[in-house]
Amino acid sequence: MKRIDLNCDMGESFGVWNMGQDAQVMPWISSANIACGMHAGDPATMQRTVALAVQHGVAIGAHVSLPDLQGFGRRAMAISAADLHALVLYQLGALAGFAHAAGARLRHVKAHGALYHQTTGDAALAQAFTRAVRDFDAQLAVVAQSGSALLDAAQTLHLRGLREAFADRGYDNDGKLLARGTPGALLETAQAAAQAVMIAAHDAVVEHHGARLTLTADTLCLHGDRDDAAMLAQAVRDALTAAGIDVQAATS
Amino acid sequence: MKRIDLNCDMGESFGVWNMGQDAQVMPWISSANIACGMHAGDPATMQRTVALAVQHGVAIGAHVSLPDLQGFGRRAMAISAADLHALVLYQLGALAGFAHAAGARLRHVKAHGALYHQTTGDAALAQAFTRAVRDFDAQLAVVAQSGSALLDAAQTLHLRGLREAFADRGYDNDGKLLARGTPGALLETAQAAAQAVMIAAHDAVVEHHGARLTLTADTLCLHGDRDDAAMLAQAVRDALTAAGIDVQAATS
Amino acid sequence: MKRIDLNCDMGESFGVWNMGQDAQVMPWISSANIACGMHAGDPATMQRTVALAVQHGVAIGAHVSLPDLQGFGRRAMAISAADLHALVLYQLGALAGFAHAAGARLRHVKAHGALYHQTTGDAALAQAFTRAVRDFDAQLAVVAQSGSALLDAAQTLHLRGLREAFADRGYDNDGKLLARGTPGALLETAQAAAQAVMIAAHDAVVEHHGARLTLTADTLCLHGDRDDAAMLAQAVRDALTAAGIDVQAATS
Amino acid sequence: MKRIDLNCDMGESFGVWNMGQDAQVMPWISSANIACGMHAGDPATMQRTVALAVQHGVAIGAHVSLPDLQGFGRRAMAISAADLHALVLYQLGALAGFAHAAGARLRHVKAHGALYHQTTGDAALAQAFTRAVRDFDAQLAVVAQSGSALLDAAQTLHLRGLREAFADRGYDNDGKLLARGTPGALLETAQAAAQAVMIAAHDAVVEHHGARLTLTADTLCLHGDRDDAAMLAQAVRDALTAAGIDVQAATS
Repeated sequence: MKRIDLNCDMGESFGVWNMGQDAQVMPWISSANIACGMHAGDPATMQRTVALAVQHGVAIGAHVSLPDLQGFGRRAMAISAADLHALVLYQLGALAGFAHAAGARLRHVKAHGALYHQTTGDAALAQAFTRAVRDFDAQLAVVAQSGSALLDAAQTLHLRGLREAFADRGYDNDGKLLARGTPGALLETAQAAAQAVMIAAHDAVVEHHGARLTLTADTLCLHGDRDDAAMLAQAVRDALTAAGIDVQAATS
Repeated sequence: MKRIDLNCDMGESFGVWNMGQDAQVMPWISSANIACGMHAGDPATMQRTVALAVQHGVAIGAHVSLPDLQGFGRRAMAISAADLHALVLYQLGALAGFAHAAGARLRHVKAHGALYHQTTGDAALAQAFTRAVRDFDAQLAVVAQSGSALLDAAQTLHLRGLREAFADRGYDNDGKLLARGTPGALLETAQAAAQAVMIAAHDAVVEHHGARLTLTADTLCLHGDRDDAAMLAQAVRDALTAAGIDVQAATS
Repeated sequence: MKRIDLNCDMGESFGVWNMGQDAQVMPWISSANIACGMHAGDPATMQRTVALAVQHGVAIGAHVSLPDLQGFGRRAMAISAADLHALVLYQLGALAGFAHAAGARLRHVKAHGALYHQTTGDAALAQAFTRAVRDFDAQLAVVAQSGSALLDAAQTLHLRGLREAFADRGYDNDGKLLARGTPGALLETAQAAAQAVMIAAHDAVVEHHGARLTLTADTLCLHGDRDDAAMLAQAVRDALTAAGIDVQAATS
Repeated sequence: MKRIDLNCDMGESFGVWNMGQDAQVMPWISSANIACGMHAGDPATMQRTVALAVQHGVAIGAHVSLPDLQGFGRRAMAISAADLHALVLYQLGALAGFAHAAGARLRHVKAHGALYHQTTGDAALAQAFTRAVRDFDAQLAVVAQSGSALLDAAQTLHLRGLREAFADRGYDNDGKLLARGTPGALLETAQAAAQAVMIAAHDAVVEHHGARLTLTADTLCLHGDRDDAAMLAQAVRDALTAAGIDVQAATS
């Protein structure tokens, strides 16, 4: 039986400010990437989000970010490899504390925003990131894009890498995501559900111009900051289930 | 053989700003209270301080604080019990991550600054604090003053409480510390060494007016932000050793 | 002709996180209390909010807060008078910069959240607050409750004080607001409109048990974080206009 | 009579953490670049530093930075032009508030750390920076290096640009500073004093390999974070005075 993981960013509220529909999305996903206080997520939010994941049997992952609340971790920063190593450890530990207190444990780690992009292309940062993961818990899986420096670095350290694809984002003919704001960059619910099935069942995606590209993924990302995030999550989950694909977190 | 623990606040630098003489003090103490990023201590500083403690075989404790870098955690804040619970877990986890990566583990926890005072007098906050400790690791010892709400709360949850006395601070005739700035509040090196031995060997302290008070302690605090912190630490350590007292962290 | 000012907290978004319905509420009020980065409001949000106020001819005021983004400035903090003096100056200057760049100027200042309460009861803090206001611009009006230490302190320094009452909050028979969460604490739109007119036209309010209390106000506060904030603002404004009351910011 | 300005970064302490020797350096300089809370400098520190500058008749400038306390503003950040515009206005306003309360006014603005480098090379950021300066106060002078995008942008907006050279840093044969850490990068007191005179009196500098380069400057920067900062400042000031050069802030 085919299997895929469904991940979504969670816990991105901060203090009085709410973001996302965590309680509505959590029932449909298998992995939650939880913000660790650097781009979003204060301690109370982290605790609440971990509890929600535990309640729904969703695997808990650290959504590690550069320290930039004001910019939501979306602004690239010239951080040194040594500082990144410490920064990743800090966030892994902080989230693991909540998981541990809730009787659970971390299963994966994913870089957020600008750090996701910086660790895709910068080998030194990717290596600092994965060394921190290994130093913390060599059982953690690292979620990253195929061909990224981060996935390479994970492999070098014998960490489990999870290749990520995107259910609700359109692809260009070079296999990259269409830039936000361009036509077709954001898929409607039905399109996203179809794309999820195509990737999970056939290791393929139909790019924006209609060609079929090979795309193998271990985990599919859904965006939780869409207005229709809950509906999207349910639709993708239902479509995968209907196609006979088992949705569950990767187990080591 | 009599035994006492010698603790000191460590890792209170932040970014480019240095505080204390950690490398010079660490060799003489048995327990380090390491700042966790809320009143001081960025990730790189935490990592470096944990490494220093490991190198010297010093027990690692979390120096948990209210979130107030600008005020160095010294300004009381009306935090809710629920928020404090999450805040303590966050800091325990973050520091434990560095300890774990360095092959060590946390041994104790101590509240910093205003939180030290708030958990001395406020039972609800003391209980939230100790619940977080228990939820994280019931083996952790809680450092607090005799008669504090925090020590009571630790006892209620069957956590090990470590009664703290101060080597380099003068006591008043009610058994409380003389307020900073009043004459006799800060002891010179020789006085501090003598007071440390008196407490460790005889469960007593000579208060400011000359009377002998009973004072039983499991751990003695040294202040690391004095200009003569390293000399003080060495003098206290040497005096204790010369008096046949074993300086070591409490073991569970 | 009777006249009243209608004020509302504005600019309480932060980074990607939105709060309130500023664009919908602004047309109906005469004074905007704009967050200055301490409890909410990053530079871009402040700039945008100032522009919105200028566009609608709404008077600009600094909504000065304790430094606590995570707690939205709602947690009392033991800040010293000297630190508060500097903190108020910092925020006045920061907001005034945006006002000045937009061709406008500050007209008033109001304390936010916990600082509102602390300056109501604590004379030393109230004096530090008003000294900062006077040192910055002695033409600024200070918005505060009748009988507060802040209004007293403003008077002592010959600053213009604006007595604030609340349009959409229920009053108890001692003239104080009913605590949030108790029945009658939050008024519906129609009730709030009626109460606004009662205060503005008759210097009176009908408290929760039905008795009529004297209540003189120069400015009426509306809450912008209600789901129906825009509708509420319009209803109150319309009711005041219909009652022949001129809604406009106090002029010096 | 030849004239030059002598500037130094000031007010880079934060909370309990001290940096620099502001009180010892201030008597010898003519312009203080004061941190505005983003890379250093809390409100109380800013207030104190402004008072010190006023006391010594030193011109006050805003040392504007990216928001990065932990990294001391030294980490480049992918900030948008719009966000930078707001960020500069925020800091100008905040510092101007203290200056105004002290009976003074801002005279110049200088970018700090990574922002200094980013506005040297990036025209869009340089333009956003100078637009903010002009929108705030078109009389402010902009301190920047010759040939920088920032100086070009200042000129385009008819702002006064002050060409900056470095008294205590070695130059390479391309007219650029030798990288920190390389031999000759940091000049001793006597060398720095000689270089200051050479630049101020002869519009020239002797680069590391011994060649004489043309270098015209309106202001000379001294580094205040050196251990010998006060001695350096005095030596440079004395040498300039002895050479008949008038040390004073540029006036518009």
